[in-house]
Amino acid sequence: MSKLRFRISMSLDGFVAGPNQSVDNPLGVGGMRLHDWVFPLKAWREMHGMEGGEVDASSTVVEEAIANIGATIMGRNMFGGHPGPWDKDKPWKGWWGDDPPYHHPVFVLTHHRREPLELEGGNTFTFVTNGIESAIEQARRAARGKDISLAGGANVAQQYLKAGLVDEMEISLAPVLLGSGERLFDGVGVDLHGLELIRTVATPQVTHLKFQRR
Amino acid sequence: MSKLRFRISMSLDGFVAGPNQSVDNPLGVGGMRLHDWVFPLKAWREMHGMEGGEVDASSTVVEEAIANIGATIMGRNMFGGHPGPWDKDKPWKGWWGDDPPYHHPVFVLTHHRREPLELEGGNTFTFVTNGIESAIEQARRAARGKDISLAGGANVAQQYLKAGLVDEMEISLAPVLLGSGERLFDGVGVDLHGLELIRTVATPQVTHLKFQRR
Repeated sequence: MSKLRFRISMSLDGFVAGPNQSVDNPLGVGGMRLHDWVFPLKAWREMHGMEGGEVDASSTVVEEAIANIGATIMGRNMFGGHPGPWDKDKPWKGWWGDDPPYHHPVFVLTHHRREPLELEGGNTFTFVTNGIESAIEQARRAARGKDISLAGGANVAQQYLKAGLVDEMEISLAPVLLGSGERLFDGVGVDLHGLELIRTVATPQVTHLKFQRR
Repeated sequence: MSKLRFRISMSLDGFVAGPNQSVDNPLGVGGMRLHDWVFPLKAWREMHGMEGGEVDASSTVVEEAIANIGATIMGRNMFGGHPGPWDKDKPWKGWWGDDPPYHHPVFVLTHHRREPLELEGGNTFTFVTNGIESAIEQARRAARGKDISLAGGANVAQQYLKAGLVDEMEISLAPVLLGSGERLFDGVGVDLHGLELIRTVATPQVTHLKFQRR
């Protein structure tokens, strides 16, 4: 059966986004520092249609993260734009422009109903209003045997972690402090539901901690 | 000049002690799980007068941590016992029995005056009531050119980190969640004062992240 694979960048003090997230600053104040390790990589630049870039131990981690993914689940906050009901006249279409980097079905957890959104390159966004289990069922069907990526943010990740539905988790720990913002593990409790550390990949910029359900 | 070297075990969710710390449970509920990686090690067992034990990549980290240390600074909570003024009739003598594992001068930061305490094996405890800078000056004189270990706990570590006085920091990240307790980086802000990740040592039980001031 296809796995639910969660990967995210986290600061040394446990934050996955900085404070004061907004349309202009989707990762919050300082949140971009979580991702400093990824931007120079060839593997990341290719995903976003850019040439060149560096290759280091993180490259394998990025390549592995996108391999064999057939669908993505994300929270409303990560899809972004604004809180509350969708704007009917000018609905938010995500941060990514006309051709987002997913190229497969994406399921957005939200409290507000909305018709599916179809963008270029096989990027379809389906809005799921009946909870995390429904989203995983829909994503599993859409993934056709491939795995499902759980993209975040913190709130949706917490729901899946607490429910014990995450099969694989990779935390890319950035050696920086954000001081405040969204904490990944807030309210998750003490139970990792069998997720065990199986691999650590380190560079001077980041430490990738991979967990798998035993 | 001798360096101030800080090392501590931290959970994936950022805690260095569990909730409800007490005389019977000094590390708080679940806090012992932070140290599961160290107890089987030969290097740790030797320090505590026990024979046998395992050798793995963590062994070097433990040996390095105790090498060239001439004095230790710790907080009142880590020295332990009880909050408030010292009991004059039966003063608390620490968790470690008659022969603590330090074998050098230890400086305990506290709000309550107390005469120095001399135990076996070169373990002297001096109680410092006039702040972190005084403690570091006294420790530096006592260390006679060797380095100073900053043993914790969270509150004292936060004071030294905020003041930018830590020269080296090694975080042994345990792949577990504590859910609540003492957070290492609470109130430290966003500034590591030049501490940069210089080495990562990983085993399936723990990831050691070593920072040094550039």
